[in-house]
Amino acid sequence: MFNMQPIGYVRSPYSATRDVPKGLGAKHEAEGDLEIREEFAEGLLDIEGFSHLFVIWEFDRADGYNLVGMPPSDDRPHGVFATRSPRRPNPIGLTVVELLSREGRRLHVRGIDMLDGTPILDIKPYLSSVPSDRLRRGWLAEAEARKAES
Amino acid sequence: MFNMQPIGYVRSPYSATRDVPKGLGAKHEAEGDLEIREEFAEGLLDIEGFSHLFVIWEFDRADGYNLVGMPPSDDRPHGVFATRSPRRPNPIGLTVVELLSREGRRLHVRGIDMLDGTPILDIKPYLSSVPSDRLRRGWLAEAEARKAES
Repeated sequence: MFNMQPIGYVRSPYSATRDVPKGLGAKHEAEGDLEIREEFAEGLLDIEGFSHLFVIWEFDRADGYNLVGMPPSDDRPHGVFATRSPRRPNPIGLTVVELLSREGRRLHVRGIDMLDGTPILDIKPYLSSVPSDRLRRGWLAEAEARKAES
Repeated sequence: MFNMQPIGYVRSPYSATRDVPKGLGAKHEAEGDLEIREEFAEGLLDIEGFSHLFVIWEFDRADGYNLVGMPPSDDRPHGVFATRSPRRPNPIGLTVVELLSREGRRLHVRGIDMLDGTPILDIKPYLSSVPSDRLRRGWLAEAEARKAES
């Protein structure tokens, strides 16, 4: 398969995994920067017109994977593809951020849940949403309901 | 960076790029399958509870990249990170699909825009949406407005 190269790096307030809010009700409101490498900066043309971006990045501090595991938001095990666990067969992370401003090749964003220095693999515009009334959230909704009852 | 391996392959009605609906107003309603490799099938545990999934995949038939290009939906050039062009520094695709049913390690989904045989890198649950009234869609909204006026 192809060789990946970082197109840039995340500047985040989080330097260790334990700093990142996790589990039920965790909010990702942290601000930070996506710093794009000089050689790829031209690819940002017109990006400031979009309010939200998909950031695809590497879990560069994850080591190996588990096909089934216990997420921080539940006390029951689930398949890795039904969770956002960092320990995945391909350690690829995906975050939706809100683009607050752009200064040259630096995008200031809200919604950071990556560690400082995380390699960015790709950025794409967020174009449409699934209406919330059509969304089923599986075990996560069940874990939330159990927590609300307890 | 890490070596990627396909966790499975897309079974799609599209065998060539020209078959995939593109441009303004293109709808992705095609059904197809995500066929996960036997060795990763356990990672699908509980996935059927989610109505929508993120599929991260490889543009395995793209060759090289352009930092600026003309998308099928506009007659003006835009930066690659502000488009969904296949010709990206890292040829990674992202599609939101609706999960219709699961049969073992085969997920039947709606919303396929990949070619048949596309390598799948990761699957993640779609957990929340950006409310549509908070979404700005940049040059794409402008291109749509110009088309509506003409």
